[in-house]
Amino acid sequence: MTDVVSYRPAPEELSYTFGGREPVRRVEPGTIVELYTEDCFGGRVRDVGDLPSVVCEFPYLNPVTGPIHVEGAEPGDTLAVHFAEIVPAREWAVSSTFPHFGALTTTHTTAMLHAPLDELVWRYDVDVAAGVVRYHARRSDFSVELPLDPMHGTAGVAPAAFESRMTIVPDAHGGNLDTPELRAGVTAYFGVNVPGALFALGDGHCRQGDGEVCGTGVESAMNTVVILDLIKGVDTPTPRFETDTALMSAGSARPLEDAYRMSQHDLVTWTAGLTGLDVLDAYQLISQAGEAPVGNVCDPNYTMLAKVAKTFLNNPPAYEGIHARLRSTARDYLATR
Amino acid sequence: MTDVVSYRPAPEELSYTFGGREPVRRVEPGTIVELYTEDCFGGRVRDVGDLPSVVCEFPYLNPVTGPIHVEGAEPGDTLAVHFAEIVPAREWAVSSTFPHFGALTTTHTTAMLHAPLDELVWRYDVDVAAGVVRYHARRSDFSVELPLDPMHGTAGVAPAAFESRMTIVPDAHGGNLDTPELRAGVTAYFGVNVPGALFALGDGHCRQGDGEVCGTGVESAMNTVVILDLIKGVDTPTPRFETDTALMSAGSARPLEDAYRMSQHDLVTWTAGLTGLDVLDAYQLISQAGEAPVGNVCDPNYTMLAKVAKTFLNNPPAYEGIHARLRSTARDYLATR
Amino acid sequence: MTDVVSYRPAPEELSYTFGGREPVRRVEPGTIVELYTEDCFGGRVRDVGDLPSVVCEFPYLNPVTGPIHVEGAEPGDTLAVHFAEIVPAREWAVSSTFPHFGALTTTHTTAMLHAPLDELVWRYDVDVAAGVVRYHARRSDFSVELPLDPMHGTAGVAPAAFESRMTIVPDAHGGNLDTPELRAGVTAYFGVNVPGALFALGDGHCRQGDGEVCGTGVESAMNTVVILDLIKGVDTPTPRFETDTALMSAGSARPLEDAYRMSQHDLVTWTAGLTGLDVLDAYQLISQAGEAPVGNVCDPNYTMLAKVAKTFLNNPPAYEGIHARLRSTARDYLATR
Amino acid sequence: MTDVVSYRPAPEELSYTFGGREPVRRVEPGTIVELYTEDCFGGRVRDVGDLPSVVCEFPYLNPVTGPIHVEGAEPGDTLAVHFAEIVPAREWAVSSTFPHFGALTTTHTTAMLHAPLDELVWRYDVDVAAGVVRYHARRSDFSVELPLDPMHGTAGVAPAAFESRMTIVPDAHGGNLDTPELRAGVTAYFGVNVPGALFALGDGHCRQGDGEVCGTGVESAMNTVVILDLIKGVDTPTPRFETDTALMSAGSARPLEDAYRMSQHDLVTWTAGLTGLDVLDAYQLISQAGEAPVGNVCDPNYTMLAKVAKTFLNNPPAYEGIHARLRSTARDYLATR
Repeated sequence: MTDVVSYRPAPEELSYTFGGREPVRRVEPGTIVELYTEDCFGGRVRDVGDLPSVVCEFPYLNPVTGPIHVEGAEPGDTLAVHFAEIVPAREWAVSSTFPHFGALTTTHTTAMLHAPLDELVWRYDVDVAAGVVRYHARRSDFSVELPLDPMHGTAGVAPAAFESRMTIVPDAHGGNLDTPELRAGVTAYFGVNVPGALFALGDGHCRQGDGEVCGTGVESAMNTVVILDLIKGVDTPTPRFETDTALMSAGSARPLEDAYRMSQHDLVTWTAGLTGLDVLDAYQLISQAGEAPVGNVCDPNYTMLAKVAKTFLNNPPAYEGIHARLRSTARDYLATR
Repeated sequence: MTDVVSYRPAPEELSYTFGGREPVRRVEPGTIVELYTEDCFGGRVRDVGDLPSVVCEFPYLNPVTGPIHVEGAEPGDTLAVHFAEIVPAREWAVSSTFPHFGALTTTHTTAMLHAPLDELVWRYDVDVAAGVVRYHARRSDFSVELPLDPMHGTAGVAPAAFESRMTIVPDAHGGNLDTPELRAGVTAYFGVNVPGALFALGDGHCRQGDGEVCGTGVESAMNTVVILDLIKGVDTPTPRFETDTALMSAGSARPLEDAYRMSQHDLVTWTAGLTGLDVLDAYQLISQAGEAPVGNVCDPNYTMLAKVAKTFLNNPPAYEGIHARLRSTARDYLATR
Repeated sequence: MTDVVSYRPAPEELSYTFGGREPVRRVEPGTIVELYTEDCFGGRVRDVGDLPSVVCEFPYLNPVTGPIHVEGAEPGDTLAVHFAEIVPAREWAVSSTFPHFGALTTTHTTAMLHAPLDELVWRYDVDVAAGVVRYHARRSDFSVELPLDPMHGTAGVAPAAFESRMTIVPDAHGGNLDTPELRAGVTAYFGVNVPGALFALGDGHCRQGDGEVCGTGVESAMNTVVILDLIKGVDTPTPRFETDTALMSAGSARPLEDAYRMSQHDLVTWTAGLTGLDVLDAYQLISQAGEAPVGNVCDPNYTMLAKVAKTFLNNPPAYEGIHARLRSTARDYLATR
Repeated sequence: MTDVVSYRPAPEELSYTFGGREPVRRVEPGTIVELYTEDCFGGRVRDVGDLPSVVCEFPYLNPVTGPIHVEGAEPGDTLAVHFAEIVPAREWAVSSTFPHFGALTTTHTTAMLHAPLDELVWRYDVDVAAGVVRYHARRSDFSVELPLDPMHGTAGVAPAAFESRMTIVPDAHGGNLDTPELRAGVTAYFGVNVPGALFALGDGHCRQGDGEVCGTGVESAMNTVVILDLIKGVDTPTPRFETDTALMSAGSARPLEDAYRMSQHDLVTWTAGLTGLDVLDAYQLISQAGEAPVGNVCDPNYTMLAKVAKTFLNNPPAYEGIHARLRSTARDYLATR
């Protein structure tokens, strides 16, 4: 029988870094964990009048729930995180422009002499039953429904080399990858850097476009069920995802072509290993069969994924088939809850 | 009744630039044009022993068919190119690594001190009836079928400012965009820079992955049917595509985030104009509803597209509804041919 | 005895591309050529009220004088251009911001949703005898003298592969390198791509800062004396410069690290050849002894130079010692003129 | 009378991060501090047979001496660090290539499918009295003297936002800037992020070229004298340097043009404040008078400086003239020691 742990952090328990924090819970590998995560604004932006630059305070942005210590996890292992369910916790969600943040504005690094763009907040209606969110324009009557597609922008483990990183940063430890591919049904793999791995999760989006061009998704608190499991003695150099039908590698870097290179390089070498293909043969196959979903083009590192359908690899098992096992456990749990 | 023009270039008629060439044909707007295009190797790579660096000669690479002068086209107009049909012309296709070309290798610009990667050729079986191509590994027995998804890597018009550009370059005039989105059923829009527009087409791929990471797709000669039409007095700043369900803008630049920025910027401002949305409202909507298909991450400029479903815009007409009209003409022509 | 040719183009003779133009003059190798070059605004911006976006018309920007056909130049040769003298032709010069141009502003490629920065013109006093230019602030009384350091932003030959490129573009053929290193006393080397090489020159600056951050230097018409000479059968892959004390390689690309890589790569491999050093030994030596002068960070490609003092290489001769010979010829000519 | 503190860390006292460490010393503002710093290899690479990948262990690379708590330093203040003296501590120094590190090689982020370049070590003779280092080629008899120009690659304070960063990273807190401008005679300014500032120093180079293209300088332990002082209530957004004749701003980011933008942006806005110039007037002045020394083009962020001669600003005082005072104190101390 599988352990189930539920955890809803008090506001003062929220974490703003990966690394540098004591665990809030300790669980055995294989535990089902029910988590509440706050939105990237800490829940302080509730309506179009709540400007993030006024109601939020740096560096108390993008809080994560955790970290959770997984017993027995050691550097050199891989943490497998199966996302069983991601459900918006409120009937509304928000998005915004934010001064000096986003892909089409001057930022701290792409520094220009322009005045910032207007700071605006958009409030979305969230209808979980109908599976939609509703967008309302701020400066006209335009309104439209978009499909609900819940995901987490931020998920990861403590980084290596004694580092601690702001939750807004995506890197080899995971973090703020901001990819719509991190939805329910996915198993995410993270290389373990410190004892216990120290997994944390946050930044739920009801949906987001590719690249999160304005800098924020449809931001929402979430009630999320994950299974945390461990693959001993197997390293994972960069975050990877597996679904029933596809394998994915994430790369986070600037410029964006380096995120592309990192993700494609990992997918090429990973799938070469899985299939027995020579590396150049795998390079050719991924070149014709691969996809390149864009994660974020707004965070301190940009994130891209490299993705390939398992059928195009003749369906090799990855990580000893753990995805299928966790998927089955998740289905059972959700069905009998 | 619609004019139909067929043109199969002799080898010596092939063109290696956009701009700087006399037209090979002159057609009226609305003409259906049946074209044969050679593959990017000029048809010289026919088997795994034909190394591109040996059998091809710079700058006689990536030949295009054309240019075609469209009567009445003037700077400030838009050329609409509807792709009615793209059919591989042979039962085989090829792909290769090429010294100093591709995303995971040292190149002329990302210059490093490494020896080049091995130059290898892969030969694919093409089965148009079954809708598949078959990949064969070079260094093992691995083999797999991939769906046929024919497209053109290179399409465009003469550039502005008296320039003539190698066909391998993608830019505002089109060129070597190398995006899998340029398949049959699409209407492509190019801003006209010189009298007659001077449209040319080449670089057919039976399919390609996102980014064309090794530098080449599944390269094939093609028999392609396009309709060339004209939208007078309407400018198009960067190549755009329309399908029955989506609008797309292309951006070509380095680094890759600039290609992303250009494409998203054009889609935001274009759709703001189509919907009457304020630009920041459109920025928000595209941020949540938009996609970012990757074109190439290997050519002199990288290419990304920004894409949005028309339903998420409440289905505004674009370019006076020309896509639907050309689509209908194409269907009629193909049905009665 | 050395031939001397003088050429002052009429306005309608100015050229706006490298490539695609008939030569304006034909000279023998070794000829001394006295040229008048217009400023990048075509001389139309004469005072602070002359806004470039109003008085100039795209694509009639950055005119060059030329092209000059050098007899006997063939692809595979190197054109040596010794800059004997560069003298501002007027007692004033101008600089400006320009909408969507410069390093600290949204541009066509680094596309953002900001309104453009204000377009302003600055008029400098030029005192050739005193060797200074004087800056005057537009929005206060601040004024300061800066040393005169005349240079050409744009110099090069016709590109390869049937291309013709706007004069604003720097690339392997030279073009708009915009580096303060292109001053009198330098010999520049350009690989020949077409018969006659087709050298052209323009865009004089009384001085410029590293990177030309606002997009323009202290722009001036120039009276310039060059010697055009030929090195048969020796190729030059990217523009190179030589002074009495240093060797330099130029790289033009985006992102800026690729311009750095290209220039350092060429300097490493070039100096390895000159000194007999192993390439990794040269890599190490340049790593400790090399400089990296920044050219432009505002043009369609960015430009960086890699530079090393000849003494740090134990003074090997380059290009058969042509620089010393041309320098001597230039001194003699200027002394006896 | 000025306090003097001397500190030579035991090997186990060395630090590998900025942030996340307890201070090793506490000093009053104005204290003269004599520090010993180990080289980037922790002193383990002593000859050409000591390959870094063998004798060094990740993450125990690039050790720094510190951190030092400066009493009274609070977020919002500026730490002024005057470099009085930097003297190589040994008669030899080393440099190396290192697998997947450097500008002309595949790296973790610019990920390619090449085998790594050869790992080689070069050992330099250091002659402090003569003011030279001697380079010896590994694969030939070539040898040459280069001027000694001692500097620190790594200097900074604890970062903001609860972060702790590997010492190899340059960012807003300083860190591994790897610029030859950080030599004796310079006052460096760092914004304080945590109480006590927590200054640390390491990575001495006998000299380095611009960009540190192979990834390492002429690496040496150093005996260094700094004065640590405090400017209360004045923030510094990015590391800045001051010499007797120039002001400099550092920017660290990828791609390299963003490091350029950040540094130029800071210099433009800083000098606008110092001179009373309008920001666009300062933009223009820096565009013509500014320099752009390249720091590193090999670390996790690249670093560039923007630099301007004080005379071109009509010599405004910066930071209340603290540089001149510290310079004078340093001279007195060194003279009387």
